[in-house]
Amino acid sequence: MTEAEIAALVEEIAGQLFVPIEASGRHVHMTKEQAMALFGHPLTPKRPLSQPGQFLAQERVTVIGPKGELANVAVLGPERPEGQAEISLTDGKVLGIAPPIRQSGDVAGSPGAVLAGPLGRVKLPQGVIAAQRHIHLSPKDAEKFGVRDKQVVKLRTFSGRPLIFEDVLVRVREDFAAAVHLDYDEANACGFQPGDLGRIVL
Amino acid sequence: MTEAEIAALVEEIAGQLFVPIEASGRHVHMTKEQAMALFGHPLTPKRPLSQPGQFLAQERVTVIGPKGELANVAVLGPERPEGQAEISLTDGKVLGIAPPIRQSGDVAGSPGAVLAGPLGRVKLPQGVIAAQRHIHLSPKDAEKFGVRDKQVVKLRTFSGRPLIFEDVLVRVREDFAAAVHLDYDEANACGFQPGDLGRIVL
Repeated sequence: MTEAEIAALVEEIAGQLFVPIEASGRHVHMTKEQAMALFGHPLTPKRPLSQPGQFLAQERVTVIGPKGELANVAVLGPERPEGQAEISLTDGKVLGIAPPIRQSGDVAGSPGAVLAGPLGRVKLPQGVIAAQRHIHLSPKDAEKFGVRDKQVVKLRTFSGRPLIFEDVLVRVREDFAAAVHLDYDEANACGFQPGDLGRIVL
Repeated sequence: MTEAEIAALVEEIAGQLFVPIEASGRHVHMTKEQAMALFGHPLTPKRPLSQPGQFLAQERVTVIGPKGELANVAVLGPERPEGQAEISLTDGKVLGIAPPIRQSGDVAGSPGAVLAGPLGRVKLPQGVIAAQRHIHLSPKDAEKFGVRDKQVVKLRTFSGRPLIFEDVLVRVREDFAAAVHLDYDEANACGFQPGDLGRIVL
């Protein structure tokens, strides 16, 4: 085998065993109406994210809570039916908000906050959550790893400060690219560096 | 058995199985000379810490790095032979310093920072570290848990977002009270609340 063939084989084997880890910084999702109120126009894509169709917007917002604010927060598109701010527990201390640990989109009864943009302010009556750590997989990936949608698994990180996350939610959808999503508290706790991998432990 | 007897028994059994978890916020240790330069007097105890003889000082400092600063940082006493700032990786991002993961006191070759107090500034040529997660145990506790000084173990947290920390260092000393010490990144990653317990997994 040539070196290139060996490298390709190693990559293929790694893909059978590991899932790439990504650290999700704090970010906001919003409705088209909220984007219009804050910026005067819909969200403008800046660059695509690992999940197909999702993008980082050029626009940024300030998230304001009862105790403090977070400036220059990323906005992800496309627009959604309801606004949402995904923050870490560390961010929650800054804002004076204790976010519940939830799946993205599961915002019923969660605390609210105020979003500020260049054209004004918008009140989120609810939607401040800390995203439950999760793994995006396609149905083919899920089959490969022997897991199913909504299954809760453990994930061992191969990182500077290795640990085994429990309560990691598997999310399977045709258009998902294989990726573990951690927040920054979790990423720092395991000493994450870009390129680090995780392994699903059942 | 009376309710009180049952409660006492449960507490005794829990003490055989679990170690209390404590979250260590960012803090600074300093020499007597540094305390004199910053405050004009040695450190003044405000309240004792869980480890015998250690105290939180009334004095506070600002830690200054190349990119930012952290105000109102706790100072722990008594004074030590060398200054040291124990911060989280999140704090490191604010300061613009990438702290190595080290045991307290192991500062050779680590980055430096500036400390500012009411009377002036002091340069730490080195000593900015992120404390390696660790467990304080007395020799009696260590025997009970079947571990020895400097052993590296796993620790399962019983907390809001349970996980299993790997690379947890056991430190045994006659005067240590049983306690797991995590930094705030780690505490938030496991959803720590005061009173949460951990279990050593070998």
